[in-house]
Amino acid sequence: MFDLIIKNGKVVSPASTVACDVAIKDGKIAALGHFNASEAASVVDATGKYVMPGVIEAHMHCQAPFQGCLGANTFFEQSISGAFGGVTTFMDFANMSRGQSPYTQALARAEEMSESAIDYSVHGKFVESTPEAIADIEKMADAGMPTFKMFMTYKKEGVMSDDETMLKVFQKAKEVGGLPMVHCESNAIAESNIEKCRQAGDMSWVNFAKCKPVLCEAEAFARAVYFTEYIGNGLIVVHTTNGEALDTARRAQAKDLPLYVETGPHYLTLFDDLYQGENGHLAICSPPLRTPEEAEDLWQGLKDGTILLTGSDDCTFDIDEKSMFLEKNPDGTWKQDFTKVVNGLSGLEIRLPILLSEGVNKGRISINKLCALTSTNIAKVYGCYPQKGIIAPGSDADIVLVDLDKEVVLSKEVLHNNISYCLHEGMKVIGYPVMTIAKGKIIVENGQFKGEKGAGRFLKRKIDPQYLAHYSLD
Amino acid sequence: MFDLIIKNGKVVSPASTVACDVAIKDGKIAALGHFNASEAASVVDATGKYVMPGVIEAHMHCQAPFQGCLGANTFFEQSISGAFGGVTTFMDFANMSRGQSPYTQALARAEEMSESAIDYSVHGKFVESTPEAIADIEKMADAGMPTFKMFMTYKKEGVMSDDETMLKVFQKAKEVGGLPMVHCESNAIAESNIEKCRQAGDMSWVNFAKCKPVLCEAEAFARAVYFTEYIGNGLIVVHTTNGEALDTARRAQAKDLPLYVETGPHYLTLFDDLYQGENGHLAICSPPLRTPEEAEDLWQGLKDGTILLTGSDDCTFDIDEKSMFLEKNPDGTWKQDFTKVVNGLSGLEIRLPILLSEGVNKGRISINKLCALTSTNIAKVYGCYPQKGIIAPGSDADIVLVDLDKEVVLSKEVLHNNISYCLHEGMKVIGYPVMTIAKGKIIVENGQFKGEKGAGRFLKRKIDPQYLAHYSLD
Amino acid sequence: MFDLIIKNGKVVSPASTVACDVAIKDGKIAALGHFNASEAASVVDATGKYVMPGVIEAHMHCQAPFQGCLGANTFFEQSISGAFGGVTTFMDFANMSRGQSPYTQALARAEEMSESAIDYSVHGKFVESTPEAIADIEKMADAGMPTFKMFMTYKKEGVMSDDETMLKVFQKAKEVGGLPMVHCESNAIAESNIEKCRQAGDMSWVNFAKCKPVLCEAEAFARAVYFTEYIGNGLIVVHTTNGEALDTARRAQAKDLPLYVETGPHYLTLFDDLYQGENGHLAICSPPLRTPEEAEDLWQGLKDGTILLTGSDDCTFDIDEKSMFLEKNPDGTWKQDFTKVVNGLSGLEIRLPILLSEGVNKGRISINKLCALTSTNIAKVYGCYPQKGIIAPGSDADIVLVDLDKEVVLSKEVLHNNISYCLHEGMKVIGYPVMTIAKGKIIVENGQFKGEKGAGRFLKRKIDPQYLAHYSLD
Amino acid sequence: MFDLIIKNGKVVSPASTVACDVAIKDGKIAALGHFNASEAASVVDATGKYVMPGVIEAHMHCQAPFQGCLGANTFFEQSISGAFGGVTTFMDFANMSRGQSPYTQALARAEEMSESAIDYSVHGKFVESTPEAIADIEKMADAGMPTFKMFMTYKKEGVMSDDETMLKVFQKAKEVGGLPMVHCESNAIAESNIEKCRQAGDMSWVNFAKCKPVLCEAEAFARAVYFTEYIGNGLIVVHTTNGEALDTARRAQAKDLPLYVETGPHYLTLFDDLYQGENGHLAICSPPLRTPEEAEDLWQGLKDGTILLTGSDDCTFDIDEKSMFLEKNPDGTWKQDFTKVVNGLSGLEIRLPILLSEGVNKGRISINKLCALTSTNIAKVYGCYPQKGIIAPGSDADIVLVDLDKEVVLSKEVLHNNISYCLHEGMKVIGYPVMTIAKGKIIVENGQFKGEKGAGRFLKRKIDPQYLAHYSLD
Ligand SMILES: [Zn+2]
Ligand SMILES: [Zn+2]
Ligand SMILES: [Zn+2]
Ligand SMILES: [Zn+2]
Ligand SMILES: [Zn+2]
Ligand SMILES: [Zn+2]
Ligand SMILES: [Zn+2]
Ligand SMILES: [Zn+2]
Repeated sequence: MFDLIIKNGKVVSPASTVACDVAIKDGKIAALGHFNASEAASVVDATGKYVMPGVIEAHMHCQAPFQGCLGANTFFEQSISGAFGGVTTFMDFANMSRGQSPYTQALARAEEMSESAIDYSVHGKFVESTPEAIADIEKMADAGMPTFKMFMTYKKEGVMSDDETMLKVFQKAKEVGGLPMVHCESNAIAESNIEKCRQAGDMSWVNFAKCKPVLCEAEAFARAVYFTEYIGNGLIVVHTTNGEALDTARRAQAKDLPLYVETGPHYLTLFDDLYQGENGHLAICSPPLRTPEEAEDLWQGLKDGTILLTGSDDCTFDIDEKSMFLEKNPDGTWKQDFTKVVNGLSGLEIRLPILLSEGVNKGRISINKLCALTSTNIAKVYGCYPQKGIIAPGSDADIVLVDLDKEVVLSKEVLHNNISYCLHEGMKVIGYPVMTIAKGKIIVENGQFKGEKGAGRFLKRKIDPQYLAHYSLD
Repeated sequence: MFDLIIKNGKVVSPASTVACDVAIKDGKIAALGHFNASEAASVVDATGKYVMPGVIEAHMHCQAPFQGCLGANTFFEQSISGAFGGVTTFMDFANMSRGQSPYTQALARAEEMSESAIDYSVHGKFVESTPEAIADIEKMADAGMPTFKMFMTYKKEGVMSDDETMLKVFQKAKEVGGLPMVHCESNAIAESNIEKCRQAGDMSWVNFAKCKPVLCEAEAFARAVYFTEYIGNGLIVVHTTNGEALDTARRAQAKDLPLYVETGPHYLTLFDDLYQGENGHLAICSPPLRTPEEAEDLWQGLKDGTILLTGSDDCTFDIDEKSMFLEKNPDGTWKQDFTKVVNGLSGLEIRLPILLSEGVNKGRISINKLCALTSTNIAKVYGCYPQKGIIAPGSDADIVLVDLDKEVVLSKEVLHNNISYCLHEGMKVIGYPVMTIAKGKIIVENGQFKGEKGAGRFLKRKIDPQYLAHYSLD
Repeated sequence: MFDLIIKNGKVVSPASTVACDVAIKDGKIAALGHFNASEAASVVDATGKYVMPGVIEAHMHCQAPFQGCLGANTFFEQSISGAFGGVTTFMDFANMSRGQSPYTQALARAEEMSESAIDYSVHGKFVESTPEAIADIEKMADAGMPTFKMFMTYKKEGVMSDDETMLKVFQKAKEVGGLPMVHCESNAIAESNIEKCRQAGDMSWVNFAKCKPVLCEAEAFARAVYFTEYIGNGLIVVHTTNGEALDTARRAQAKDLPLYVETGPHYLTLFDDLYQGENGHLAICSPPLRTPEEAEDLWQGLKDGTILLTGSDDCTFDIDEKSMFLEKNPDGTWKQDFTKVVNGLSGLEIRLPILLSEGVNKGRISINKLCALTSTNIAKVYGCYPQKGIIAPGSDADIVLVDLDKEVVLSKEVLHNNISYCLHEGMKVIGYPVMTIAKGKIIVENGQFKGEKGAGRFLKRKIDPQYLAHYSLD
Repeated sequence: MFDLIIKNGKVVSPASTVACDVAIKDGKIAALGHFNASEAASVVDATGKYVMPGVIEAHMHCQAPFQGCLGANTFFEQSISGAFGGVTTFMDFANMSRGQSPYTQALARAEEMSESAIDYSVHGKFVESTPEAIADIEKMADAGMPTFKMFMTYKKEGVMSDDETMLKVFQKAKEVGGLPMVHCESNAIAESNIEKCRQAGDMSWVNFAKCKPVLCEAEAFARAVYFTEYIGNGLIVVHTTNGEALDTARRAQAKDLPLYVETGPHYLTLFDDLYQGENGHLAICSPPLRTPEEAEDLWQGLKDGTILLTGSDDCTFDIDEKSMFLEKNPDGTWKQDFTKVVNGLSGLEIRLPILLSEGVNKGRISINKLCALTSTNIAKVYGCYPQKGIIAPGSDADIVLVDLDKEVVLSKEVLHNNISYCLHEGMKVIGYPVMTIAKGKIIVENGQFKGEKGAGRFLKRKIDPQYLAHYSLD
């Protein structure tokens, strides 16, 4: 007797779309086949729907004490918003500042996340390479958190890892079978530009993007890749935005360097013209939004396998938080100063819809490729496969049902992220998640959240060495 | 009640390896999961084994009236040999000469193949582009044979399709949703070289390879690709042997041209030094064997996705057939004349073992990649997916059990191909098929053939348009 | 005592611009330095002018019995028009048809050219590779004509060299230290397209360009390059029009293949929109005019050294000749049938002005690069360097004075090519030749022709082996 | 009446080799042509010799107070050694440390160099970007020294320019029409490796090369190029040693970035096996010597125009200086500690011979290319063309006569560099300078130095903007 049968759907994996039923028992996939409704306590009719492994979000910043803001959501609220977007597992970053233990911070963050309705995990964050910090890398790997974030910029903010730190973290990550995650922007280019803007007295939204142009990111990307090639480790580069960086990636991947590149839906659908608007600060994120031409390069990278990961880099700040350090002119307009804007965009809930609509339904990628990009590849790279990322006997029953024909006009009302604006306001997407199941329990159905606070469990991760030895997730 | 359960194996797909059982009923996969032995009429214990979709051989020449030889095997015998190599579906080529109907010839060939123990299909062959021949393309596609072979060389033998014919077949194949298959060698280079050898009076085995060097193949490859790009169709290039051609492929694939490249195990493991031996003629095939350096380029192509297909190009001629037009010198050695050697190598049975041993067990490709290269991708490109090429509910129960640790020394005694020599004689392979199941029936077990003559059925094929619209099988 | 001193000019070579005088004696450059007017019989004041080696035209078709037309000019008239464009040496092609001796034809053509006012030479033309034809290659090289033209298309017209002929001519050209010159268009693509147009009943000018698209040229280009790589010879590809071909060239040149690529001014300044006009047939040439985007690729090729040669491919047909096989509709418009248009554009006189204006004055290439592209490189590749192509002691005093500031509006009245239209009508060029000196004699001055019929001499050519051994003219 | 005529030589430029005489008056080239001996006060017979513009050395370190050593030569002695190697102009670097004025230091260095027998100039050196230091850039450009050296490593030694300083110097150099010169090695990689060696207690010569591998240089190279692309300036990268860096250069140059790459003769002829010897420390230079494979890549770069500059990076330390901080083991062998070795190799005198022998006489480059690489290109990039770098009327009569057949076995006795060893000891070179003329005076003839202390003059330089606007010296 199964707990639940999902009947008549099309079950999706990165390599196949199979018309069959999915039987679930004790929170896990029990069997694929064709079953009678009578064999289960309850049945979901998935006729006409795609039955996909739940989306995994490995890149978000919730309750980050960033520039004094914590964001609009608690982790429980964040898990609700995610669930509406098909997300069944998420990972966040430990807080970090000099002198602290990355390991202790990661444990603290895991504790905070335990109120979530879905499974969760934590990445370490590194800003220095003291012997103590480096020693923590092994502890974190042992504790199931073998991923270590670094920023190549934000020197003034005290967040940057310098080249020496990167090399040391790369080396140790390699030794413990872990993966560094790098935010690539050249601090020298960014800071010298900001200084020039300051001297010129023009800190407008538009100048934000000019301060951190494609080459600012591309230089840092190339440097991180050279360090990886030198150390011989694997690497995750988060939120890649441009073709120049992808060309560097192609050359490295052709040498079999295990370089896993992520991009996000905002870089595919939002562009730097937003900075020309009065409320351009709402679109300020790092790296900045780029041009439609760069977005085409990103789609090419998604198609040809240069980019194997997507992530939202979700930072859900409401207008008041984005603007909290800003002043206004006498005429009510903003005194534009991009250095005073809290960085980051909300995106957790819309990653899947945007990729369904702009990717699958526009013929750029198949539903199978989408499955890899939102779930399977992420599970593999971050070390929770095959527990997560696949619909197969024995795996967790984390599932999202997708209606590829459902049309939704994105707006702040449609989303569940607790903020009063939506950068995609008015955008029609075709293809939407219609049911989310976490470990066998329906947590979103008919537009209702049915999950439970604290139902999520800490996900202990370990990366398969084959993904660290070659550039391949097959 | 199932007919058969394969218990405790590791079920392989291109994207996953899942520890679960496979339940079979009425010749088809009924379910994946964990089942009790009591649920089936019989049970196979696959503990420690990989459970893979049966190998598909889309490139072989059996009973081809080639230069007066028919080869050592009937189609039934061929299916036996294949079954020992994990092959559960095979496809051969229609005979063809000017003035004949390709469609009629294909039907005749299908009839001949009906004695096979495994499912089978037929590719058309084209040497001219008369209106009648072109009209046959649609008939063939309608009859489930949407693949059309052409040779860019063998002009003197009357087998070559000239550029005009290629363009016309490409155009029509595109219109009917089919795929041309091209043997790429520049006839002008090959024939002018052969003529030079003839004038120089040196027709030694060694000169055979020199007459058709890498550039001979690479020029034709580039030409076929340009024609494809111009017409806008998809293309299969068979038996690709070198990195120069792969570089051409990479550029075309990066433009999203649906260019599916095949290579064969002989080009990965046999090299042109064989032509230096007295019995070098046994190694004569076209294109000729190359160098180990080229083989490394092929492995790279397999790894990075430039090559998505493997095929044996099996031509099982025994020594007497290979040598039937040759004469001997007074001292008993061969009067070497490569133009009198019947071309082609036996390979049907060893494709899987060689790719297991040299590919998976040497760490060059994963077992999942192997699955794609020997089965899934072939099913997709040739239009019989998901009936074939995957272990999923609803698919044919064509399965091969692989023991990745089993060691076999290849030799003529070990193989079942009815010939008295083996070019891989003495080569130890690690990893071997240990059981073959065709449509739910065990046809090879414990080294015994248990299949049935005529059990094979004609496989009606239709290519998914998405594989013709983009270069992607995901 | 010198015959002539050119004072105060800027003497240009591919690597330098030197402010000095040029002293001439007995038709040759005697010295460079600073001389008193009293040291010479006459003096030209070149203050503010660039003193450049005379333009060499190695690609023109004058008095070609092409489709029944001979063109508007005798060779003497052609040499006058050329002289106004700074041309001091030109080369034409032997006529050729099957069964004739290429060598004899070349001699006959040389005889015809002897009425020219400037020095001249002849290229052989090959349409077949009979033993006799091949044997002529050596005779031609010995006679100072080591360049051999072939067409890869025009099969129906009986002008095409097939692949076998190309290989044989390439081989023999290599043996005698000569260079094949190839017109690259795929006959199969071109003819199959023309046939389709014929069946569709649409032979409009616009369709002409569609029949011979970029890929039609690029395929043939790649094939010619593969043949060259295979034979190991050098190659000249004439009138290259697109970036796809240039990418092929770059790869070959990076392997040090001596592949010398030519483009012409028409492909840089005239585009395929001309075919939309009622008189679009006047713009019909082969390969067809392309887009501005392709022209940018050509400029890139000129800048980065992929293209080292320019040539006009001059075919000076007047309107009546271009239209002689055409009929008119009742309303007086042309019954468009591109197959009935005599191919080719006039360009001899405007090559230098266009390259000065569009190249040098628009900052795309330096005056030194221009010198190489119009004179020095051509002299080197075609084997008349340093007799031609450089202003240095001992070289022929073939010189053109250029005023880089002179503005001229191109029109049929401004040119001297005897035809009643100008495709560049109304185009303003900045930079123009103002004096032409051939072997020490002023032949154009103040807009007057001062040369002499029959003053030209046959130029015996021999190619420096270093240019055949490497891709380098340095 | 001329002062000197060089008769019957072959006068070399980057684009031509002309058989003519060179007439000299008042230290300058007066005329090229054919002159009577009676027209000059004296005559040199150059029959059979190549008459080339004198070698320019823009990269040497003489009297550098480096690690406490000044080197074996005064500037006068250095100019003598150079003259024997055909050098007629040299440039050195200002000393520099924090808080000092780069401009003042450059003037001081010019004063020190004034004892030279040949013309000289100075590059600035920058280790910081204080407003004062940046302001000095304009002063230096105005004073004829528009080239500014920075090191990307040697942080501990206080010599490194960090990324911020590089960006500021690049920006200002651009504004004043100058060029930065960068020593590319990643400090993070180098220092972290050295630290590892120290911890492992193995500071052997061999480990020196391992600490600064190809990727150490390549990362810094890529970073410098990205900064250049970002700022939009031109750049000189000195002493490039490997193909990875050249590939980066090719991509940048293809975008028309004015990136001028230098390599040196030691990287073409000396390899890292030298570090295995007891006296391996004598071969320690930075970047380290590489492999023969990398040298082949450098030759390719020289051939295809990726590398347009050569320089010796001469640091003439005698054995005692190289070893002055080293200790010995009881058995008399060195206590190997590469951090205690004074870096740098002698090379000023052998650059021309090595390039003649390994380059021209081995068929890798033409004598014209050699001319560009040793003189013309350097004059252009460093801003002293056409005063230097060309044999043309009006240019300085700096000339070296080369006998391309002269064989010399290199040894410490043959050279004039005041040191007691020669890393090329025993190497036979074919092709050697046989006479050196500086500003019309013979300074080396028949193995004798005939120059005069203090005859050199400070060379005021200014870079032609065209070389800063495009990647092209034509
Ligand atoms: Zn980030
Ligand atoms: Zn982030
Ligand atoms: Zn074949
Ligand atoms: Zn075959
Ligand atoms: Zn042509
Ligand atoms: Zn032509
Ligand atoms: Zn240095
Ligand atoms: Zn140096």
